[in-house]
Amino acid sequence: MQRKKHKHKKKIQPGSAPGIYPVQENQKAEGDITLIKYNENCAGQQELDQIHQFKTLKEENFIHWLLIKGVDNSQFIKEISNEFGLHPLVLNDIMDLSIRPKINDFDDYLFISLEVPFYEQKTRELSEKQLSLVIGTDYLISFQEDKTNFFLPLFDRILKSKGHIRKMKTDFLVYAIIDLVVDHYTLIMQEFEEHIDSLEDIINTSDTRDILSELYNNRHSLTTLRRGILPLREIIRNLERGYTQFIGKNTFVFFHDVYDHSIYIIESIESFRDILATTHDIYLSLISNKMNEIMKVLTIFSSIFIPLTFIAGLYGMNFKFMPELEWHWGYPVLLCIMLVVSGIMLLYFKKKKWLGKDKKKQKTKVLTGSTPPQE
Amino acid sequence: MQRKKHKHKKKIQPGSAPGIYPVQENQKAEGDITLIKYNENCAGQQELDQIHQFKTLKEENFIHWLLIKGVDNSQFIKEISNEFGLHPLVLNDIMDLSIRPKINDFDDYLFISLEVPFYEQKTRELSEKQLSLVIGTDYLISFQEDKTNFFLPLFDRILKSKGHIRKMKTDFLVYAIIDLVVDHYTLIMQEFEEHIDSLEDIINTSDTRDILSELYNNRHSLTTLRRGILPLREIIRNLERGYTQFIGKNTFVFFHDVYDHSIYIIESIESFRDILATTHDIYLSLISNKMNEIMKVLTIFSSIFIPLTFIAGLYGMNFKFMPELEWHWGYPVLLCIMLVVSGIMLLYFKKKKWLGKDKKKQKTKVLTGSTPPQE
Amino acid sequence: MQRKKHKHKKKIQPGSAPGIYPVQENQKAEGDITLIKYNENCAGQQELDQIHQFKTLKEENFIHWLLIKGVDNSQFIKEISNEFGLHPLVLNDIMDLSIRPKINDFDDYLFISLEVPFYEQKTRELSEKQLSLVIGTDYLISFQEDKTNFFLPLFDRILKSKGHIRKMKTDFLVYAIIDLVVDHYTLIMQEFEEHIDSLEDIINTSDTRDILSELYNNRHSLTTLRRGILPLREIIRNLERGYTQFIGKNTFVFFHDVYDHSIYIIESIESFRDILATTHDIYLSLISNKMNEIMKVLTIFSSIFIPLTFIAGLYGMNFKFMPELEWHWGYPVLLCIMLVVSGIMLLYFKKKKWLGKDKKKQKTKVLTGSTPPQE
Amino acid sequence: MQRKKHKHKKKIQPGSAPGIYPVQENQKAEGDITLIKYNENCAGQQELDQIHQFKTLKEENFIHWLLIKGVDNSQFIKEISNEFGLHPLVLNDIMDLSIRPKINDFDDYLFISLEVPFYEQKTRELSEKQLSLVIGTDYLISFQEDKTNFFLPLFDRILKSKGHIRKMKTDFLVYAIIDLVVDHYTLIMQEFEEHIDSLEDIINTSDTRDILSELYNNRHSLTTLRRGILPLREIIRNLERGYTQFIGKNTFVFFHDVYDHSIYIIESIESFRDILATTHDIYLSLISNKMNEIMKVLTIFSSIFIPLTFIAGLYGMNFKFMPELEWHWGYPVLLCIMLVVSGIMLLYFKKKKWLGKDKKKQKTKVLTGSTPPQE
Amino acid sequence: MQRKKHKHKKKIQPGSAPGIYPVQENQKAEGDITLIKYNENCAGQQELDQIHQFKTLKEENFIHWLLIKGVDNSQFIKEISNEFGLHPLVLNDIMDLSIRPKINDFDDYLFISLEVPFYEQKTRELSEKQLSLVIGTDYLISFQEDKTNFFLPLFDRILKSKGHIRKMKTDFLVYAIIDLVVDHYTLIMQEFEEHIDSLEDIINTSDTRDILSELYNNRHSLTTLRRGILPLREIIRNLERGYTQFIGKNTFVFFHDVYDHSIYIIESIESFRDILATTHDIYLSLISNKMNEIMKVLTIFSSIFIPLTFIAGLYGMNFKFMPELEWHWGYPVLLCIMLVVSGIMLLYFKKKKWLGKDKKKQKTKVLTGSTPPQE
Repeated sequence: MQRKKHKHKKKIQPGSAPGIYPVQENQKAEGDITLIKYNENCAGQQELDQIHQFKTLKEENFIHWLLIKGVDNSQFIKEISNEFGLHPLVLNDIMDLSIRPKINDFDDYLFISLEVPFYEQKTRELSEKQLSLVIGTDYLISFQEDKTNFFLPLFDRILKSKGHIRKMKTDFLVYAIIDLVVDHYTLIMQEFEEHIDSLEDIINTSDTRDILSELYNNRHSLTTLRRGILPLREIIRNLERGYTQFIGKNTFVFFHDVYDHSIYIIESIESFRDILATTHDIYLSLISNKMNEIMKVLTIFSSIFIPLTFIAGLYGMNFKFMPELEWHWGYPVLLCIMLVVSGIMLLYFKKKKWLGKDKKKQKTKVLTGSTPPQE
Repeated sequence: MQRKKHKHKKKIQPGSAPGIYPVQENQKAEGDITLIKYNENCAGQQELDQIHQFKTLKEENFIHWLLIKGVDNSQFIKEISNEFGLHPLVLNDIMDLSIRPKINDFDDYLFISLEVPFYEQKTRELSEKQLSLVIGTDYLISFQEDKTNFFLPLFDRILKSKGHIRKMKTDFLVYAIIDLVVDHYTLIMQEFEEHIDSLEDIINTSDTRDILSELYNNRHSLTTLRRGILPLREIIRNLERGYTQFIGKNTFVFFHDVYDHSIYIIESIESFRDILATTHDIYLSLISNKMNEIMKVLTIFSSIFIPLTFIAGLYGMNFKFMPELEWHWGYPVLLCIMLVVSGIMLLYFKKKKWLGKDKKKQKTKVLTGSTPPQE
Repeated sequence: MQRKKHKHKKKIQPGSAPGIYPVQENQKAEGDITLIKYNENCAGQQELDQIHQFKTLKEENFIHWLLIKGVDNSQFIKEISNEFGLHPLVLNDIMDLSIRPKINDFDDYLFISLEVPFYEQKTRELSEKQLSLVIGTDYLISFQEDKTNFFLPLFDRILKSKGHIRKMKTDFLVYAIIDLVVDHYTLIMQEFEEHIDSLEDIINTSDTRDILSELYNNRHSLTTLRRGILPLREIIRNLERGYTQFIGKNTFVFFHDVYDHSIYIIESIESFRDILATTHDIYLSLISNKMNEIMKVLTIFSSIFIPLTFIAGLYGMNFKFMPELEWHWGYPVLLCIMLVVSGIMLLYFKKKKWLGKDKKKQKTKVLTGSTPPQE
Repeated sequence: MQRKKHKHKKKIQPGSAPGIYPVQENQKAEGDITLIKYNENCAGQQELDQIHQFKTLKEENFIHWLLIKGVDNSQFIKEISNEFGLHPLVLNDIMDLSIRPKINDFDDYLFISLEVPFYEQKTRELSEKQLSLVIGTDYLISFQEDKTNFFLPLFDRILKSKGHIRKMKTDFLVYAIIDLVVDHYTLIMQEFEEHIDSLEDIINTSDTRDILSELYNNRHSLTTLRRGILPLREIIRNLERGYTQFIGKNTFVFFHDVYDHSIYIIESIESFRDILATTHDIYLSLISNKMNEIMKVLTIFSSIFIPLTFIAGLYGMNFKFMPELEWHWGYPVLLCIMLVVSGIMLLYFKKKKWLGKDKKKQKTKVLTGSTPPQE
Repeated sequence: MQRKKHKHKKKIQPGSAPGIYPVQENQKAEGDITLIKYNENCAGQQELDQIHQFKTLKEENFIHWLLIKGVDNSQFIKEISNEFGLHPLVLNDIMDLSIRPKINDFDDYLFISLEVPFYEQKTRELSEKQLSLVIGTDYLISFQEDKTNFFLPLFDRILKSKGHIRKMKTDFLVYAIIDLVVDHYTLIMQEFEEHIDSLEDIINTSDTRDILSELYNNRHSLTTLRRGILPLREIIRNLERGYTQFIGKNTFVFFHDVYDHSIYIIESIESFRDILATTHDIYLSLISNKMNEIMKVLTIFSSIFIPLTFIAGLYGMNFKFMPELEWHWGYPVLLCIMLVVSGIMLLYFKKKKWLGKDKKKQKTKVLTGSTPPQE
C-alpha cells in the first residue's frame, strides 16, 4: 500500500489575522451547490446557482442538505458563511485543508471537520480528503475538498427511501455520513488485512529493496490512517454521549455502533503496526542469516583450498636439494595427502553443521513454517 | 502455535443503509434451533423447526435457552430477530462476523457479542469463532458462527443438575457461558506456557527459518488473542459493576471471579510477548555470534596459510641468481621458518582467545545456561 | 534540519536565595521599551526611555502593550518589575532563559512564559527564544530574549486595524500572540513535512554519514520542539478552560482553535518521530543488505579462482615423475577442466540467486518502490 | 538468576461447574493444622488433628491464627471451608495454584491470595509459592502451598512478644504477614542489585552463550516478579485506603509504609529491566565491534600478502623470455619492491587506524570505562 | 558521567518486627547536633551535646532548625525520636538508607525523606545521599546521611538575612531546603546537557569501548536520577496543593515554582534518554557501515589479485607443451592482459561506488553533518 505524496499546501503566514482566511477580493463567487430536501413523504434534488436561493427554497418539516463541492474559491465559501452566519474560525477551518478532524459546538450550529481516506486499488495509492459539516436544526451543509461523488450511496437511500433515513431527523443524516466515512476506513482495513496475509509470499519471493519499500510504505500509511481515525473517534464519542443538543436521544444507539466500529479500526491499526514491526524484525534476522550462509560458503572454500595451494606451492619451489621431488611415488603420495587434508576439513565443517542442508532451507517458507511437498 | 488464515469475509459496501444487513429475499428461512428449558425441579431439551413454536413452549418460572447454530442464513436470523423485537443493529451485529466483542443494553434485552478462541492441537492451529447472546428476563438466545458442540459441558451441568446452575436465574447462565469462553482462553494460555518453556529446545536444535517462523507465529497469535480478550474484559467489568439490570446482585461475585481470570490472561499475554521479544533479541545475538565464529575460522586459516603460500611462491621464482636455492639446508631451514611463522600466528590467536573453546560452547544450552554433563 | 548548539547559560548557584535573581548593582538600567496604545478608534506606537514614563502615558479605555527587548540587563528588568509590582519569582523567570514554558496566575496579573522556535532556512538551523508575558486588565508586557522584530505582523494588524483585534480586549491580544507562536511551530512542521518527503532522495543518493547525520539531527530537533509545544498546549488549555479571570468568555472559541492547532502539531511530531524511526530501521536493513552484496562478490571471486589457482599450483610442482606434464594434450585438457569447474561454480551461484540482478536493484528507489523507466 | 520451570499444573476443564473445584470423594481428609492463640497477656501454639476441634478451643478476647500447610487434599480443604462457611469460589481459589493475587471482600470475612517469591542462593533458582489468607474478626486462616516454615519469624515475635504485635488486633497480623511477603521481594531485589553490579565482570570475562543466557534469565525473572508484585500493590492499596471493614484505622499507617515498599520494588524492577535492556544493546555493539576487529585482521593479512604472492607468482612463470629473471640483482631488487609494497599497505592501514591499539582495548572494561593499571 | 557503586547496605531480615529498626543496646548515643534559631530580628547557631538540651533552649516566636549529621548510631537517633515523639516507622525510615523518597503526614509533624544527588566533577562520579526532614510547627529537624556541609548556603542566608527567609515561617525553610535539593538536580542536568553536546566529539574521536562505556554510564545515571526525582515531584505536588497543614498559603507560590523546576528536570531526563538511545542507534549504524568499508577493501584486493595470481600460476605450470611460454612476446602480452583485467575490475568497483571517497568521509563529523574545511 503506497501513500500519495502530501498535497501541496500553502505555507502559512505567521501572524496573519487569526481566524480570518485571506479572501481574494477579485475572485468571482462560483461553485457547485446541490440541495437535497426530504421528509418522510417526499424527497427531491436540485442544483442551485447562488446560495441566497436557499432561503426561498427552505420549507418547514423538511430536512435540507446542502452539498458544496470544492472549497478553494474563498469568495464563494465566504458567501455561504455569511448566509448562515458562521464564525470566521469556521470559515477558516473549511478552507484550510491541513487541520485536524474536530468538532465545535456553537450555539446555533454544530461544526464537524473530518478526513475521508480513499484507496485507489489500481495504483495502490492512499489519499485523504477533507470533509466539513455544518449542522443546524433543520439543515446540514457538507463541504467537500474535491468534486467526487462521495455521497452517491446516501443520495440513493434518501431518494429511494431505503432504511429509516427518511423517517429520521438531521441527526440521523449526520450519523449516516459519519458511518459512510468510517466504512471507508473499514474497507481500507480489509485491504490491509489481505495485504498483511500476503506479506509471507512477498518476503519469500521478492528482493530486499522491494520488501523494505513495502514495509516502509505500509507503516507510513498506518501512521497516516491513525492520525485521521483517532480524532474521529473522539468526535463520535462526543456525539454519542449527547454533549451537543443537535443529536437526539434516539440516534445515540447508532452513534454507539459507529463508535464501536471506530475502536475496532484503531485496534486493527495497532495490530497491523505490531505485525509489521515483527515482520521487519524477522526479516532482519533472515538477512543476518543469509550473510551467515554466504560466509560459510566462503570459509569452506577458503579453508579447504588455501592449505592445499600452500602445499602445491611448497613443491613448486626451486631448491636444489628437495629429496621428495626425486621420489618416484612423491606425486601420487602428495595427492593422497591432499585428499586426506580436505577430507578432514570437510568432516570438521560437517561437525559444525555448516554443510548439507542448504537446499531444504531454501524451500521452507518463513512466516508460516509449512514446508511445501518436495518434488 | 500457528494462526489460521483469516476467514473470507464479505467486503463491506460503504454507505449501505446503516444497521441493516442485506437480507436475501429468495432465501428460505432454515436453521438449527435447540431449546433448553429448566428450573430447579426439571430440565428438558427440544429441537424446534420454526422459531414461532417458541411462543407456545414458553412457560412461567422456567429459564429458556435458545441455541441457534449458524448465522449465514439471513432470512432465518431475521425471523428470530422479528420474533423477539431485536433492533436492526443487533440483527446486523449477529450476522457480521468481523465485529469487535461488545455489550449493548437495550431496554428489553441485553446484547453481548464475543469471540471464542479454539485451538486444534493436531494442526497447532488457532482459530476464532463469534458467539452472540441476547439476554431477556427469562430467556437467553445464543447465536454460534458454526455448528460445533461448544456448549456440551453446560448442557451436561443443566440436565444433570451439577452445581448451582439449576437454582439460579438467567444471569447465572450468562456467567456460565462467559466463564466457558474465558476457560477457552485459559486453556490456550496453558498451551502457550508449555510452548514458551520449550522454546529453549527449539532454539538449540532447529534451524533458523523454523525458529523465526515459530517466533513470528507466536507473536501473531498473541496479538490476535489480545484483540479478543481486551474487549471481553470490558464486557465482564460492565456486568460485574451492575451497569445493567439483567444481572442480579448475587451473581456479582461470580462475574468478579471471571473478571480476575480475564486480567490474568491479559497479563499472561503481555508477559509472553515480552519473553518472545527477549528471545528474539537473544536469538539475533546468537546469529551475530555465530557469524563471529565463522569469521574467526576463515581469518585463522587465511592468516596462517597466506603468508606461508607467499614464502613458498617466493622460492618458486625462476630468478637465475637466488643464492638460497643453492644452499644444501635451504629447504629444511625454510620449512622450520614456516613452522615458526605459523606458531607465532597461533599464539597470537590464542592470546586473542579465538582458539580452542568451540566444542564446549556448542553444548551449552542458551536459554537455561545449564551445561549438560560432558561425555 | 540542524539544531543550534545550546546557548551558553550561566551555571546555577545551588542554595542561592530562592526566587531572587542576582542583580548586578553597578549596572545601569537601560533597555528598549516600545509602547503600543490602542482602542477601537485609534492606535499609536511610541518609544520610551524610562519605564516610569508609562504611568503618565496610560489612559483609560485603551489597551497598553509594552514591548521589552532584551532581558540581560537585570537592573533594567528589576525596575520594570518594581513599577508593576511583580513577584520576585516572576522577575527571576523573566531573566532565566532555561525555564519550562509556564503559566502562573497572581491576583493582579497573569504571567506566561513561552518558547518561540525560529527556523533559519539558509543555514537550516533551528533555535529557540524565550518570550515572557505579563498580562494585567488593561496592559500587557512582553519580554523578548533578543531584539528581533518578532511582533511585526501584529503591529501591522493593530495599526492598520486588520481583523477584529482593535475591537477586542487584552485577552484577544494574548490570543493573537500565542497564535503567532503556534504559527511558528506550524511553519516548522511544514518544513519538516517537506523534508520527510525528501528523505527518500537523500537515502538513495547520499552517503552513509550524511544520512545518519540527517536522521540524528531531525530526531534531535523533534525532541527539542516537543519540549516546547507540550507545556504550551497545557498553557493554552488553561486559558481556554477559563481557569483565569484575565481571559473573557468571548475569546474562549479562539483559544480553543489554537488549542486544536497545538494538538495537531504534537501529533505531527509523534508521526514524524515514528517515520524517522522506521526510516532508520529500513536504512539499517539496507546497510546489512549491502554487506550481503559485497560478501557475495568476494565469495564468488574467491570460490571460483581459489580452486583454479590450486590446480595451477599443482602442475607448477617440480616432482620428477608427474606423468601428466609429459602428455601432449595435458595443457589444453587442463584448461578445459578449469573451465568446467568454474562453470559449475557459476551454476551453483546462479541457483542460489547470487548472480545477475545487481544492476536492476541499484536503480529501485527504496522508500517508494517505484522503478524509474529503464533506459 | 535462574527461574524454576513452571510447576506442573492440572489442565483446566473448560465448562466445568464454575466455582466448584473437583473434590475427590474417596480421599481422606488429612492435613497439617497449627493453631496460634494470643492476646496481650499470653500466647500459645497447638497442633490440631481435625478442624472441628477449633470450635472448642476458640476463646473470647484472643486472636486465633490457623496455619494450614498443603492445599492438594481437596477433601481436607473442603472441610475447613465448610467449618467457616466459605464461598465455593474461595475454596476454588485456595486450591488453584495459578490464580492472580487478589483480594475479595465477603461480608463475614476477607479473602486475600498472594504469591511469595523464594530465592535459593545455592542453585540460584527463583520460585513462587501461593499463600491464601481468610480474615475474620477474631481469626485468620493462612493456607500455604507447601510445608516450609515460612512464618517462623512471626511465630517468634508472637510467642516472645517482640514489638507491638501482641497488643494489636487481627489487622496487624495481616499487616505483619504482608510485610513478610514484601520483605521477600525486597531481599530478592537486593540480590538483583548486586547481580546487576556484577554484570560488568560477567560481560568482560564470560563467553557469549553464558552472557546471553544470563541476560535472558534475568529478564525472565523480572517479568515473573512483576506479575506477582503488581497485583500485590493493588491489594495493599485497597487495605491502606480502608475499603474493607476488617482493617482498622490505626493500622493504616503500617499499610501505607508497606505500600511505599511495594512501589519501591516495582520501580526497582523497571530500572533493572531498563539496565538489562541497555546492557544487551551494549553487548550487541560489542559483538559487532569484535566482528570488525576480526575482519580487520583478515583484511590486513590478505591485503598485504595477496599482492606479494601475485608478484612471486609472476616470476615463477616459465616464459622463455623474461629478461628480469636474467638480471643479477633481480632477486634482491624484487625483495625490496615487496618490502616497499607491504610498507605502503601498512601505512595505509595505519592511517585508517586499523592498527596497533588492540592490546590496550582488550583491557578496558566496558561497563565502567575504568582502565586497570598497565603492568 | 559515571555512577558510583551502590553503597553497601545491610541485607534486610524478612519478618523482623515491622517498623522497628534493630537498636544496638550497647552503643553509646553520640552524634553531631547543630541548632539554628532565628526570627526576623536575630539568628544564632549553637552546637548541642545532647538532644535533651533542646528543651531548655527552645523559645517562643523563634524558628528552630536542628541539624543531625550521620544516622548510623541507632541509639542516638532513637533518643531524638523519643524526644520528639516520632512514630517507630519514622525512626526506621530515617535510618534505612534504601527507602524511596516519601512524605508522611502525622498529626503532630510532617515527615519527608529525600535523595540528594551529588556530582564530583573530578572523578565524574554521581552519588546519592539521603536527607530526612521532620517538620513541626516551630521546629524542623534535618537528618543527613553523612557529614558534608550541604546546608552551608542556607546558613549563610539565615545568618546574614539574605532574601525573605528570616521573615518567613518553618514552611519557607522547608521550601528553601527542597529548592536546594532541586538545584542540585538542575546543576547535574546542566552538566549532562554539556556532556550530550560533546558526545559528537567523543563518537568521532574515541574508540568503540570508550564510547559504549560512555553511553552505558550515562543511561544508567539517568535511570538513577529519574528514580530520585519522580517521587520528589510527587512530594512537592503534595506540598503545593496544601494537602498538609504545615505549609501555609503564602508559600504555595514558591512550591509551585520548585514544582515547575522538578517537571523541567524530568522532561530533561526523558529528552536525554531519547537522545542517548538515538545516539546508540546511530553509532550501531556507523559500526555496520565501517564493517562495510573494511569488507570493501578486502573484496577489492581479493577480487583484483586472486584472478591475476591464478593467471601467473597458470604459466608457472611445468607442462612440456605450453606454446605460449615459447612466444617471444608472451611475457609482455600477458602483463598487458593482467593490466586490462585489473582495469576492468577497478571500473566495476568504481561503478558500484566502492572506490575513492573514503578520505572525505573520514572527515565528516557524524552528529552535526558539518564538513570541516578541507586542507
